[in-house]
Amino acid sequence: MAVYTEVTDEACEAFLRLYDIGQLVAFRGIAEGVENSNYALKTTQGDFILTLYEQRVDPAELPWFLGLMEHFSAHGISAPRPVRGRDGANLNPLAGRIAAITTFLPGVWPRRVQVAHCGPLGAALAKLHLAGAGFLPTRRNALGPSGWAPLLAKCLPRADEIQPGLGAELTEALKTILAAWPAQLPTGHIHADLFPDNVFFLDGKISGLIDFYFAATDLLAYDVAVCLNAWCFERDFSFNVTKSQALLRAYDSIRKLNQAERAALPILAQGAAIRFLLTRLYDWQNTREGALVTPKNPIDYIRRLRFHRAAVSAAAYGL
Amino acid sequence: MAVYTEVTDEACEAFLRLYDIGQLVAFRGIAEGVENSNYALKTTQGDFILTLYEQRVDPAELPWFLGLMEHFSAHGISAPRPVRGRDGANLNPLAGRIAAITTFLPGVWPRRVQVAHCGPLGAALAKLHLAGAGFLPTRRNALGPSGWAPLLAKCLPRADEIQPGLGAELTEALKTILAAWPAQLPTGHIHADLFPDNVFFLDGKISGLIDFYFAATDLLAYDVAVCLNAWCFERDFSFNVTKSQALLRAYDSIRKLNQAERAALPILAQGAAIRFLLTRLYDWQNTREGALVTPKNPIDYIRRLRFHRAAVSAAAYGL
Repeated sequence: MAVYTEVTDEACEAFLRLYDIGQLVAFRGIAEGVENSNYALKTTQGDFILTLYEQRVDPAELPWFLGLMEHFSAHGISAPRPVRGRDGANLNPLAGRIAAITTFLPGVWPRRVQVAHCGPLGAALAKLHLAGAGFLPTRRNALGPSGWAPLLAKCLPRADEIQPGLGAELTEALKTILAAWPAQLPTGHIHADLFPDNVFFLDGKISGLIDFYFAATDLLAYDVAVCLNAWCFERDFSFNVTKSQALLRAYDSIRKLNQAERAALPILAQGAAIRFLLTRLYDWQNTREGALVTPKNPIDYIRRLRFHRAAVSAAAYGL
Repeated sequence: MAVYTEVTDEACEAFLRLYDIGQLVAFRGIAEGVENSNYALKTTQGDFILTLYEQRVDPAELPWFLGLMEHFSAHGISAPRPVRGRDGANLNPLAGRIAAITTFLPGVWPRRVQVAHCGPLGAALAKLHLAGAGFLPTRRNALGPSGWAPLLAKCLPRADEIQPGLGAELTEALKTILAAWPAQLPTGHIHADLFPDNVFFLDGKISGLIDFYFAATDLLAYDVAVCLNAWCFERDFSFNVTKSQALLRAYDSIRKLNQAERAALPILAQGAAIRFLLTRLYDWQNTREGALVTPKNPIDYIRRLRFHRAAVSAAAYGL
């Protein structure tokens, strides 16, 4: 959960006067989201989400994120639409932070992923990739391959405290990944963090994709690889190829993966696994006692990484 | 904040089928409330609150709490109304807990109490006390005077760790309070925890009173004394008599405090201060590391207690 910044009722009302979305009816902190403070905001005109951006988000990058969300929302993607204020601005100061109001998306994120979720997810991801083409500004993926070695270097001194031999295993894995990283695959805007808690379903269909604050311009197939990690492993870390097949086939039906992308899937999936492993490891080592958010266990991703390192081709994922 | 118990989408949908309030549209954990897990629940018929009762609430007492809320809601009080299922039950199992759905109340709780809040609060409290008269079942106040000595005994061995001399000061204060505790004042159902975060305002009027899970049958004027502690001190622990006067006059205009109640206000206010001091002290001493909720500092209430010990009559509160 996360409400890091407390907003007074007066401040919320004053903030709302910057917008033309009616009078305040209610606002309640939402116990979801890890990076920012989120409030469910109800006005006389409907439901909205109020987000206050916390320290991990660079204010200079917010216009890009909100521009992308607005673009997606205008191009048939169920992404939150940033609401513009009376003066046209979609970012305004609130309680010492920069804040935005976005539209409320209905739906519930799947706590237990079923095969039936994976097809719609794959199709939605492909539509997202196609829809992104018209948005011209780009953003470098700070958590892409060039960011992994520096992150590993920071974690290495204490990596073996988590598991003996972890440091050596990660060093070796990252070396392999970076050496084999594909350079010529199609690029575009990727979500880069499309985990189940960022995807709402309603009546078996996707009703919302949220949390675009890791989005970047990078290899489209890498985004697919993130989803293979996030949606296709069971709780015991076994890989469910029925899920990945449903995901990939649905993706492919909307945006066909080319031969190079298919061939690169194992290495992209290793990259995605090591990316989440490294940020979790870093958070694990650097979370202070008393933090509001419990860091996620990095160990989960070592099992995923090992699976992908053993995968010899896209056939491992059902393609 | 608090979402202690995670509810899966499937479990939520199955639970909702027990009720006749439409189909699930969304449910999101709410980052408010300390004792139970609360979700904002949206269905095709509107907004509701889904509460899962956690360990501090005795399941045997839930029917009394929900009965009282239903009674209040039916008698003109803006309290959450428990929604009854198709079989008439207002409590059902969910995710290993007992759970209830209640109506959503609009409004925002005041982060900074103004004088303008205190009149409406006093009037609402008096109306609550009058409305409670028709609800016949009673509940002993486990956190009333008879509970304070056992609680102090548990805290005493480590009380001076918080502040040197605290143990002796509390022992002496409690002795005075219990010796002077009034026995013959009017009783009824009290909220017993009507802090600002349990009171919603909309357009300057009270739109909701929530969280009845400390409610009990006890001295009505004690509930007033709780509110004096909760609403009339400034952040520097100075007492704002303009606020207390507004609160008491508005209360008095709806339900007149009799002479004995007025005379007892200083001792009742001391009792209320020591009650919150003791539970906070206990939580402070007994909260494990990594708990989801940060315990509130008991020191805040020592300052309040001292103020009330120096009060010689209701005049100290502006009456």
